[in-house]
Amino acid sequence: MAETNGAPAATAAPGGVRTVACVGAGVIGGGWVAHFLARGYDVRAWDPAPDAGRRLRGLVASAWPALTRLGLAEGASMDRLTVTGTLAEAVAGADFVQESAPERLDLKVSLLAEIDEAAPEHVVVGSSTSGYSMSEMQVKAARPERLVVGHPFNPPYLVPLVEVVGGESTERWAVEWASEFYRAAGKQVITMDRELPGFIGNRIQEAAWREALHMVAEGEATVEQIDLSMTAGMGLRWAFFGPCLTFHLAGGEGGMAHMLDHFGPSLKSPWTRLEAPELTAGLRDAMVAGTDEVVAGRSTSELIEQRDRRMIAVMRALAEVEAEEAAEARARGGEGGGA
Amino acid sequence: MAETNGAPAATAAPGGVRTVACVGAGVIGGGWVAHFLARGYDVRAWDPAPDAGRRLRGLVASAWPALTRLGLAEGASMDRLTVTGTLAEAVAGADFVQESAPERLDLKVSLLAEIDEAAPEHVVVGSSTSGYSMSEMQVKAARPERLVVGHPFNPPYLVPLVEVVGGESTERWAVEWASEFYRAAGKQVITMDRELPGFIGNRIQEAAWREALHMVAEGEATVEQIDLSMTAGMGLRWAFFGPCLTFHLAGGEGGMAHMLDHFGPSLKSPWTRLEAPELTAGLRDAMVAGTDEVVAGRSTSELIEQRDRRMIAVMRALAEVEAEEAAEARARGGEGGGA
Repeated sequence: MAETNGAPAATAAPGGVRTVACVGAGVIGGGWVAHFLARGYDVRAWDPAPDAGRRLRGLVASAWPALTRLGLAEGASMDRLTVTGTLAEAVAGADFVQESAPERLDLKVSLLAEIDEAAPEHVVVGSSTSGYSMSEMQVKAARPERLVVGHPFNPPYLVPLVEVVGGESTERWAVEWASEFYRAAGKQVITMDRELPGFIGNRIQEAAWREALHMVAEGEATVEQIDLSMTAGMGLRWAFFGPCLTFHLAGGEGGMAHMLDHFGPSLKSPWTRLEAPELTAGLRDAMVAGTDEVVAGRSTSELIEQRDRRMIAVMRALAEVEAEEAAEARARGGEGGGA
Repeated sequence: MAETNGAPAATAAPGGVRTVACVGAGVIGGGWVAHFLARGYDVRAWDPAPDAGRRLRGLVASAWPALTRLGLAEGASMDRLTVTGTLAEAVAGADFVQESAPERLDLKVSLLAEIDEAAPEHVVVGSSTSGYSMSEMQVKAARPERLVVGHPFNPPYLVPLVEVVGGESTERWAVEWASEFYRAAGKQVITMDRELPGFIGNRIQEAAWREALHMVAEGEATVEQIDLSMTAGMGLRWAFFGPCLTFHLAGGEGGMAHMLDHFGPSLKSPWTRLEAPELTAGLRDAMVAGTDEVVAGRSTSELIEQRDRRMIAVMRALAEVEAEEAAEARARGGEGGGA
């Protein structure tokens, strides 16, 4: 029985999915396979590459120790992967289909039409595309209403984020169902109500990346400096507090409102090649109200305490991994030297 | 004895500094005070606010538990803080001065001239400015050659990064000395060879921030979605692998070269409002060579193993903090309820 308003009666409940089909088994598709297996699903995978099955099993096996450390779902097993000889065999009997073909529009269009043809009409299909809108991709599908974007981040078996958005011909129930399903499968989901090139995460990542490329192009910074500015700087905060909450704290007791009112003029500074938007009263109020939701009643001193605790936990965790790796390298060196 | 080429004979070795003066003791200046105390320095602080001493000691005390968890240097003590009544008393006898006044150019110019007047000429002075160049700020100082920018990230007592750069009248030895000193004081340092508005880290941060503001202004994303896209997505990777190393891995075995050759055209995609630079052969080669330095001989499979291990360590560390906080809240609830 469907739990999502408007879904066909035959559609599984998002939390009741047992079998997931993965079409395309490269780095992203294979990462999805590993994720779904680790969450206890049966997975049926298909990829047209001649050697796909062997490579996919290798990818899953190499991710499995990490997934085991992170905690497998009950009954999760690599043995629950079936690699099929045809696309139709993969999607027949699946409760959900994840498409992860290479990023070529013509390929995505025809593959999604093929999946649509082969999969029962009550089954939702998610595409891993990072570059195309579902409106562009669903044009040849006979039942485009159940096609959504479910955009993961690399590697899909570790990064929690999935961005879900439909196309012009997608029905609302499919977007809601997919969002609920990904959550049930252990993901953190952003459900977008409109299509946007790059979705949300990649727009932010791409802005940072383009500024970095400009700096290297102009000899203003080296690759090493750019990466260090992230890993020794913003990245340590962004692992747990996003850019808005970070700037809320930069505003002290006055928070985001003070930050915008006080530092608003710095938006006009030439600190990046990206022009800032006009800081209208509407934008200011939207930022303050939105940040209030994220803050959810926490005081500045509570946020500072939470930030400090998390930053120290992250830094200590990373230092421990480095110490472990160094010890392992010494042990290997010892073996090698026969000491 | 100075270890840095060209430094005056009376300048302390960067690793031999015992006393640091902090001028300005707000959030940033106070954060520096906490950091230097935790690293075992004597700190002399001055701030013109009437209540500055009390507030500064409060700030240090609230940071101290975090710093203790992170690990104090031998002999580190909050008692080694002296709050002085005048700027001259703070900087007299200091081996290094950190200026952290509010971001107003006229104030910075006159304060740096005052510090320059009061501090022995062999002492290097670092400014925490995030917005001004040292060339703009050093114009009224009699001995501008020892004035540098030492730009921290909030909170300075936790975030390791400091960006060091001189102005037109700064001598090279002072930039080198400051870089060595901050490293000796436990920081990770980017030494820039030219002035650049926003330095390096803030340019990347500001590009991400402006793209986020545009999205909110246009109703394309909410504050909550933007922050979640970071903390459930890129931020978890950026805590340990910067944007360039992340994209190197996205290129698979072919690394950065493959990524640029294959996905280069996506630089033209409207994934952000920031125009990309032309991907010339020179830029491509600079990115590949620079990334090679960061990779430092690690194979793709080694990098994947390192990434997975770190990501899991970060996610587990953050989950542990959340579990601790929830347990503490329950305990407080229990006390409150008298159960």
